Order: sequence, then structure tokens, then C-alpha cells
Amino acid sequence: MPREITAFSNPLIKRVRNLRDKKHRREEGLFLAEGLRILTEAREAGRLPQYLFFAADMAGHALVKALVTATEAAGGEAIETNADILSKLSGKDNPGAVVGVYPEFAVQLEALDRSSAAIWLVAERLRDPGNLGTILRTADAVGAGGLILVDECVDPFSVEAVRASMGALFTVPVVRASWAEFRDWLREGPGQLVGLSLDTKSDYRAARYAAPTFLLTGNEAQGMPDYMAAECDLLVKIPMLGKADSLNAAVATAVMAYEVLNQSR
Amino acid sequence: MPREITAFSNPLIKRVRNLRDKKHRREEGLFLAEGLRILTEAREAGRLPQYLFFAADMAGHALVKALVTATEAAGGEAIETNADILSKLSGKDNPGAVVGVYPEFAVQLEALDRSSAAIWLVAERLRDPGNLGTILRTADAVGAGGLILVDECVDPFSVEAVRASMGALFTVPVVRASWAEFRDWLREGPGQLVGLSLDTKSDYRAARYAAPTFLLTGNEAQGMPDYMAAECDLLVKIPMLGKADSLNAAVATAVMAYEVLNQSR
Repeated sequence: MPREITAFSNPLIKRVRNLRDKKHRREEGLFLAEGLRILTEAREAGRLPQYLFFAADMAGHALVKALVTATEAAGGEAIETNADILSKLSGKDNPGAVVGVYPEFAVQLEALDRSSAAIWLVAERLRDPGNLGTILRTADAVGAGGLILVDECVDPFSVEAVRASMGALFTVPVVRASWAEFRDWLREGPGQLVGLSLDTKSDYRAARYAAPTFLLTGNEAQGMPDYMAAECDLLVKIPMLGKADSLNAAVATAVMAYEVLNQSR
Repeated sequence: MPREITAFSNPLIKRVRNLRDKKHRREEGLFLAEGLRILTEAREAGRLPQYLFFAADMAGHALVKALVTATEAAGGEAIETNADILSKLSGKDNPGAVVGVYPEFAVQLEALDRSSAAIWLVAERLRDPGNLGTILRTADAVGAGGLILVDECVDPFSVEAVRASMGALFTVPVVRASWAEFRDWLREGPGQLVGLSLDTKSDYRAARYAAPTFLLTGNEAQGMPDYMAAECDLLVKIPMLGKADSLNAAVATAVMAYEVLNQSR
């Protein structure tokens, strides 16, 4: 049976709210996700929360019930609460019906099977959590094998990244690795490393991609360093007709990823 | 000569900071933009701030000097200040060298020349300011004639939208119109209205686009209403191989816009 929490002063509320900070996520090994759609996506992927907070007035909703049942069956705790508490936990004025607290998970490079997908996304020093989440959502859509975060990227378990991923964080493998680790692993087997660049004449549409293709997107402000560009098997650019010299990183990744997908369809 | 403001209590600082709220923007008819790159883009497009705040230790930078000179020549005021004030104005811990306060501008549908571009972007009830700014940035890149915001969209002059646009707000015409106004204007001349939809079998890559193409992107959560889909000359979908049923709105718009551009190259 779910217990009930309606007091802001409850220590668990404070603890969960603190998971909005990276420091506390690291200490606890836990992160936050919110919304019926995302938590259901997680459940269907076999990920269940350690704590599930749900709005009392939504307790009868079939998807809420399914989440409560699955959470308790997996040894987690379901906690009935109200909109004010959910709003405090999620940081949104209009919170969804549910907030879940999940154990962080990590995938290692060695666990990836590169032959399982034609496209893999790679991002280096990605700074914006919204971009990270959006790239994960795109990775899901193009059937990418996973997202490899190279060097110091923003935390994929931040509230903003999880939100922007719309649940893809739970379904797309995310690996964190240094550039050297990634490069060494990549070169142990087949794989075309394709870099998005402004310093090339190769049009992304004219280039030919070979599976498995590893699409490398550089840092939002600086692009990728020269030594990464030098390691790429192919550098391509997306044409830009306007006054600006670059696209948003998540947009550029998606335009490229769909071209790779279209060539393999 | 620039005057100097270093006191948080200065009434102009409070007034400018209030422009982060839509209510104050509407009352003043002013909005905020920040960063040397964006303000320089604006200057090159002929847009100059009413107030230009710049960091004293950056006063010698060529682009800052050019902004100060152009602002004063156009009758605006340049104000020398410090990082703390700039941080307060921009809401960022690491503010750029400059913050500008600009008069809002509006473009009417009737002022658009549809024959001037092959692609036009249209978004209905867009909710996220980051998506709006990112779509503007894409509009610039694909050489779109403008962005038409249909019905109640997020404010294009919000700090987040201006930031995500990376200056494209100053170079890409943005029009706000009701659905009826847009539809009536569209049907007065040539133009193929193409809607992004999940309820069609037409693959976006197999479809053929005719200039001028008006790409309609629906609301992030709900997509477009049936009566808008019914008005479209063509509905197309972007294939999705994963578990999620939709892409981020700015990503979907960009994938579509590049396909239209590629067909015309």
C-alpha cells in the first residue's frame, strides 16, 4: 500500500528535491524523471523507480496504477501526494501526475555491439542539457545504437536532459568515455567516423556513409578540436545559406542522422 | 561619451532587468539581447539598441567599440558597467561583454514577398522559447523567407528565444497571425502548404515540394488540429524507428526544411 506524504517538511521531499543538483545526484546515485509519458516509457523499458510520487487525484488512472503496481513489485516505494509537492519536486508550476526517483545507470563502451545498429551518435563536450536530451530523442527515432558522450559533457541525468529526451534516456544506451578511450575502442573494429565540420567542402548529402556510421558532433560554441577532426574518416558540412555560420548542435546532428538513415533505407 | 553605471540600485538597471518578464516587455515595447556575437549580428542587420551596456574591461575590443559608436550615432545610449551588473541583467553567471535593449519590431503578413524565398516556416501554438529560437536559427540557415507564428505562440522576444536564435531574430522576418489571417493571406497567391503529421503514409523524402513551400509545424505536445491538417496541400511524415512517436519540434522542422532545400539545390 502506498504511504502518503503531504508535508513539505518531510525529509524525503527535501532529499528528492536536492537531486536537481549534480552534486547530490552523484552522492546518491539517483536522478529524477517526471510525467506519465516518460515514466511509462521507462517502465516499458524495464526501468522502475526507487520512489514513485503520484498525485492522489490521479490514483485511479490506468497508467498510474500500472506504475504503482510495477514499482512495488520491484521493491520500490509508491508515495501518494499532491500537486503542491509534485510541483516542488519537479520545479514546474504545472507538474505532471508522477515524479520518479531512479537509480543512475551506466553503460560501458565494451558492452556496445557495434553491429547492432547502422548509426551511432557521438557528441564531444556537449554543454546544453536540452541539446543532450534532444539528441537522445533523435537517436531513438533514427534507430541509433546509442549515444557516446566524449570528454566532459553535461550530465545526461540532469532534470533538463531527462525532460528533453522525452523518455529516450531510458531506451537509448548512453556511454561516457574520454576521447582516447572512444578512439581506441572504435578502431578495434569496423566503423566510419564522420565529423560535422565547417572546414570542409564535402556536402553531407553527396557523401556516402558506411554502416556502422559514427556521427561526431562537436562542442556547441567551438566545434571539435583539430585532433578529433584529423581522426575522422570523413568530414562533411551542412550547407548554410544565411548570415549565421552554424546550426544548433541537436539540429545539425538530426539533419545528419536522417541523411545516414535515408541512405540505408 | 558613455555614462557609467555600477550601482544595482540604479533605476535603469531595475527597468532593464524587468524586461525578462513578458508583461514589462509589452508595456515598454523593448526586449533584451546579449552577447557580442548576437549584438554584432543585429548591428550588421541595421538593428541598434536603445541602451547598450558593456563591460568596462572590454571597452577596447573592436566589436564593442563598433557597437558603442553605432549605438550613439543612432541616438541610443552606451553605458559602461561591470560583470556583476551584466550578470544581473542577463541572468547568467558568466555574462557576455554586452547586453542590448532593443525596441520590439513587428512584420505584417502583407509585407512579406512570398516570391522572395523558396521556403517559409510556419509554427502553430509553439510553446517552448528554445524551440522558437532554434527554428529561427534554422530558418536563417536554409534561407527561409521568414517564420510565421500562428495563433498563441511563445513570445519571440523572450530572453530564451533571442538567445537560442543566435541573432537570427534580427535577420529573419517574424510575423504573428491568427490561423484565419494566415490561411486567407496564403490563398491569395501561390504557395504549397505542407504539414508535418503522424497520421499520413507520405514519407517526407518521397514527396515533392513546390516553391514557395510553407512548412507547417504543429504544437509540441498535440501536433496541429484537424482543421489545419485538412487545409494542407500535402501532409508528410518523418520516419521514426524507435519507441517514441515524435521528434522535438525544432528538430522535425529542420529535417523537413533541409529536405525542401535539398530538392531545390
